[in-house]
Amino acid sequence: MMAKTQQSSLQEYLADEVKIVDRALDEWVPAETVAPESIHRAMRYSLFAGGKRIRPILAIAAARTIGGDTTGIENAACALELIHTYSLIHDDLPALDNDDLRRGRPTCHKVFGEALAVLAGDSLLTLAFEVLSRLPGVAAERRIRLVEELSRAAGTVGGMIAGQVHDIEGERQTPTALLLESIHRAKTGALLRASVRMGAIYAGASAAELAALSQYGEHAGLAFQIVDDVLDVEESSEALGKTAGKDQAQQKITFPAVYGLERSRQMAEDEREAAHAALSVFGDRAARLRQIADFIVKRKA
Amino acid sequence: MMAKTQQSSLQEYLADEVKIVDRALDEWVPAETVAPESIHRAMRYSLFAGGKRIRPILAIAAARTIGGDTTGIENAACALELIHTYSLIHDDLPALDNDDLRRGRPTCHKVFGEALAVLAGDSLLTLAFEVLSRLPGVAAERRIRLVEELSRAAGTVGGMIAGQVHDIEGERQTPTALLLESIHRAKTGALLRASVRMGAIYAGASAAELAALSQYGEHAGLAFQIVDDVLDVEESSEALGKTAGKDQAQQKITFPAVYGLERSRQMAEDEREAAHAALSVFGDRAARLRQIADFIVKRKA
Repeated sequence: MMAKTQQSSLQEYLADEVKIVDRALDEWVPAETVAPESIHRAMRYSLFAGGKRIRPILAIAAARTIGGDTTGIENAACALELIHTYSLIHDDLPALDNDDLRRGRPTCHKVFGEALAVLAGDSLLTLAFEVLSRLPGVAAERRIRLVEELSRAAGTVGGMIAGQVHDIEGERQTPTALLLESIHRAKTGALLRASVRMGAIYAGASAAELAALSQYGEHAGLAFQIVDDVLDVEESSEALGKTAGKDQAQQKITFPAVYGLERSRQMAEDEREAAHAALSVFGDRAARLRQIADFIVKRKA
Repeated sequence: MMAKTQQSSLQEYLADEVKIVDRALDEWVPAETVAPESIHRAMRYSLFAGGKRIRPILAIAAARTIGGDTTGIENAACALELIHTYSLIHDDLPALDNDDLRRGRPTCHKVFGEALAVLAGDSLLTLAFEVLSRLPGVAAERRIRLVEELSRAAGTVGGMIAGQVHDIEGERQTPTALLLESIHRAKTGALLRASVRMGAIYAGASAAELAALSQYGEHAGLAFQIVDDVLDVEESSEALGKTAGKDQAQQKITFPAVYGLERSRQMAEDEREAAHAALSVFGDRAARLRQIADFIVKRKA
């Protein structure tokens, strides 16, 4: 009974946060009536396709864990979702993963054509930094730290693009534990870690607090990727809203491919526990971050 | 005799500036030995292909026109070239302009494949904002203003991407003077104007100085695009280092298509004069900016 109440309260919490994030995104992204209409339609099509908003939600929860004035944190959180969505659009292009289905709908290039999909990705990436540069009521020093944090996490040196490159090139390589880790630490790990760190920076975290939350972000990020790999094997395309079973078909280097399904599940559980442990200094203030780590491991899509 | 000396001194000046910009770019872009090596090779391949560096040179000259401490301005100028180069890589993709030749060499996707070309463009775009966030010795307030300026100029609302979208979609439309202007004001104009403005902001320009330099940037930017369109008709691919005559083949909306060659040449000359006029308040301090406007109109490639 207790567990069920907690579960439903978590669902409500996540749904409420999604609404807050979506409202902020709607304000930052030009309307479909703004010229050139087509690019804004394409950006919004991919952005408002029912994403889980896990990165913005992590940023907001991390900021609230630190406490203090977190007014407007949802604006900074938008930048993370803009980066994430741009990466999905470009990843899905025929030249990359060549995927037709994303978030339960045809991919951006399927609907708007490849040219506009390339430009829509570029636009979301560019807008992410515009949003950070214009955060209302935030000191310049803090805004520029957020720009640095996000640009590094999305970049080529240990960042998201490094992971995508490894991922593409990994298809031709022997799947080893070392290669797997370097792919995933970068591909999804860097941005998830940055989500938590950006929330902490926004709220003025101390160096020690930032270090603890970075630890949490790394473990939660790794858990997220392991579970993503497992779900790709276990679930249907319908449940995932994207093409299932593609990792194996494309010979991607995944956790199940290297460790098998059962050991992968255990590893996700270990990462969840390590994420919890990193939060011990925050006591009850980190209740939401603990719940999010749990959600990351238990989700079915 | 006098004219010839000035000409050769302009050539030397531009060559010296290119060296300064290239040295700074070389420091900011990860070496080809940094993993993932392939992406850094692709980024460097397109970046160090003998570009004119007109945007960085404009930024540096604008900063020196304002005066004061302009130490390190070449770092901020790098961000402009990173954005410009990303836009060329993505523009050349098969799904967009489908071009095989750029800066006298095979385009990025021809050498590294489409997947890596998409990611190399994304990487340069992301790096531009990382560079601005980390400008050494520049106050946070000024760094964040530069991020805002660049992100808007590169964006979808009157910025570079807006121009690219209009450009793609213009291929199917009747070439009118109004459409032509909206394409070019955005496509190359926004980033050239931002180059001048970013130099001015870096050097701490007053609002009046910034307004005058913005005017200069708009006129010089329009002159640049008109001349680009004219050269596409008049010059060979060998001279341009990119495929000549493509505008007509792709039915692009260009100045020669709307106004004819002779009137286009006169319009470029008018813009050059307007650019000069905008600089009157600066007197001799703007000598370099005048020369750059002249160079933009007289260049043969």
